[in-house]
Amino acid sequence: MSAASVLPLLLTMGDPCGIGPEIILKAWAAGECDDAVVVGDPAVIQRAAEVLGLCVDMDVLAEWPAAWPHQWVGSKAHLRVLAPAGLPSGLAALPWGQVHPDAGRAAAACIDVASALTLQGRAAAMVTAPIHKEALGAAGVPFPGHTEMLQAAAAAHVGRPLAVRMMLANEELRVVLVTIHLSLRRAIDALDTPGILETLRITHEAGLRAGLPAPRIAVAGLNPHAGEGGLFGDEEIHIIQPAIDAARAEGINATGPFAPDTVFMRARHAPGHPGEFDFVLAMTHDHGLIPVKYLGVEQGVNVTLGLPLVRTSPDHGTAFDIAGTGRADPASLVAAMKMARRLSAQTAGRGLTQEPTP
Amino acid sequence: MSAASVLPLLLTMGDPCGIGPEIILKAWAAGECDDAVVVGDPAVIQRAAEVLGLCVDMDVLAEWPAAWPHQWVGSKAHLRVLAPAGLPSGLAALPWGQVHPDAGRAAAACIDVASALTLQGRAAAMVTAPIHKEALGAAGVPFPGHTEMLQAAAAAHVGRPLAVRMMLANEELRVVLVTIHLSLRRAIDALDTPGILETLRITHEAGLRAGLPAPRIAVAGLNPHAGEGGLFGDEEIHIIQPAIDAARAEGINATGPFAPDTVFMRARHAPGHPGEFDFVLAMTHDHGLIPVKYLGVEQGVNVTLGLPLVRTSPDHGTAFDIAGTGRADPASLVAAMKMARRLSAQTAGRGLTQEPTP
Repeated sequence: MSAASVLPLLLTMGDPCGIGPEIILKAWAAGECDDAVVVGDPAVIQRAAEVLGLCVDMDVLAEWPAAWPHQWVGSKAHLRVLAPAGLPSGLAALPWGQVHPDAGRAAAACIDVASALTLQGRAAAMVTAPIHKEALGAAGVPFPGHTEMLQAAAAAHVGRPLAVRMMLANEELRVVLVTIHLSLRRAIDALDTPGILETLRITHEAGLRAGLPAPRIAVAGLNPHAGEGGLFGDEEIHIIQPAIDAARAEGINATGPFAPDTVFMRARHAPGHPGEFDFVLAMTHDHGLIPVKYLGVEQGVNVTLGLPLVRTSPDHGTAFDIAGTGRADPASLVAAMKMARRLSAQTAGRGLTQEPTP
Repeated sequence: MSAASVLPLLLTMGDPCGIGPEIILKAWAAGECDDAVVVGDPAVIQRAAEVLGLCVDMDVLAEWPAAWPHQWVGSKAHLRVLAPAGLPSGLAALPWGQVHPDAGRAAAACIDVASALTLQGRAAAMVTAPIHKEALGAAGVPFPGHTEMLQAAAAAHVGRPLAVRMMLANEELRVVLVTIHLSLRRAIDALDTPGILETLRITHEAGLRAGLPAPRIAVAGLNPHAGEGGLFGDEEIHIIQPAIDAARAEGINATGPFAPDTVFMRARHAPGHPGEFDFVLAMTHDHGLIPVKYLGVEQGVNVTLGLPLVRTSPDHGTAFDIAGTGRADPASLVAAMKMARRLSAQTAGRGLTQEPTP
């Protein structure tokens, strides 16, 4: 391991009434948390361990060490937990699967601590277990979710507003979305050259941070066959191509626009099938998410790009319906941790372009 | 094999200057043509055999037998060829990879003979090797492609106009497209309840023909999260849902509208992952084709639905750039033949819902 790899991943516990604590413990029991520190309430972690019938020996950190002790990395015996000061008491007695203001308050406090440490460069990256929008609201947290909280914290840290983009990724494919939660008609209306150029810059930065010297970014078109030279729509000509040209003039390795129906296949990175690109920009939510989710959502990871920190999360919610039953699947959380390590270029030889493990 | 399986597949040779003859011979050499009859020019087939260094012994049929001889099925020694009367002479001397009116005329004549035999119930299905639009045009054929030729022939056969739809399918997924070659904006404008209902009826009929008692048809929405109850667009509420309701009232097992980003994953039919649906209706070209093509285009098959015959084709063109070199890949043609057998319910135990071979 390189020296840089000593910095830990921070793992926020998420809503204490959701599946976050359980999937974290399952990941720990599977040996996936050697380089991680959970930011959360030890009693909540203990309750999840009891649900799972696990015996967990926690190293509870009273405060963050000035230097991260090397010997902690790779020690599987203990689960390291950082408990933020001032968490509400009685969290472990809250009913599973219900919205509670204390749960929202605690989840937000963990995120605040983790983002501050990561922004200060004292952690490699943060991986966030799911929170509940309504619990945040009940707690009076003025943000609807992780993205907005982190965007505000990072903007305060750097002293200017920051644009963010959503990336969905798995072992095969990394897709960055130009538009997200808009009707398809409004998404088409919302496309413009500056927005696509900004997405290209954000994606390029993320690639550089992940250790790629010249990230290969494919831009998918909007229309069938990428418009077939204007025959099936002209957004490629008037909106998308100028953004690609401007990005290339800045030294960004962007190409396209490519036909949407084959660009994801071309970018797919699988054993025996090296992908042609490191990232694909999709103009619409479903052009991008259909291929990422096609082989199964359990491997999908949500990544917030555009921030001066690496943040990933599993691609699912708090699953209140099964919280406390021990049935939650940690696969997406584990995938999110792996992706966080890659994007922060934490581990030598584990860059984005490596052949994924079969 | 059941008695019905004695009816052969018809394999049209396609444009003699393209890769059609080569991929047919490669499929034959791989033992994939036991139940097939090529409709084409024996000299053209012979030329392709020479390109490939294959020694082919043709059984050239002067005319179609009144009853299909059982003993022919399963005989690998010979390649059976039906040569339509009146084909232009000298086809095997045309240069590879060039548009020629005689090539277009010959390709069209083979399609006419094959569609007539299939419409008469004397063949199980037809599989069409690629033709060239410009060669058809040069020959004065008044149709731009297979679909329109077959639509006209079938309409004349049944005495009424027929609506057709394009299905793209592979071993995992069968996607029927409501709209095809339109800009995304115009595709959204073109969506209407009667068109979706017609697509559902056509898909249902295709499923019944393939031996499914109640084909499970999933309808993908248009907008992210299928509109999230009207929050991200209302086409699901006002256009798609009424079509589903009307289809269900007719006894069609249609469900949805489902979120586009997960419905294809749910329908995916792979070893250990039985699909939840037999077909998915996609509102737009790329919502449907992105997942079908994601794992590789070589397995993709194009199927024309809505006709009173089964017709499939490989999902590629004449590839004039490599015609005559022996490099063309027969995989998509072979996949098209397998799909034709399934859709015509030719082979016992090979219905659509079987677990695909790994």
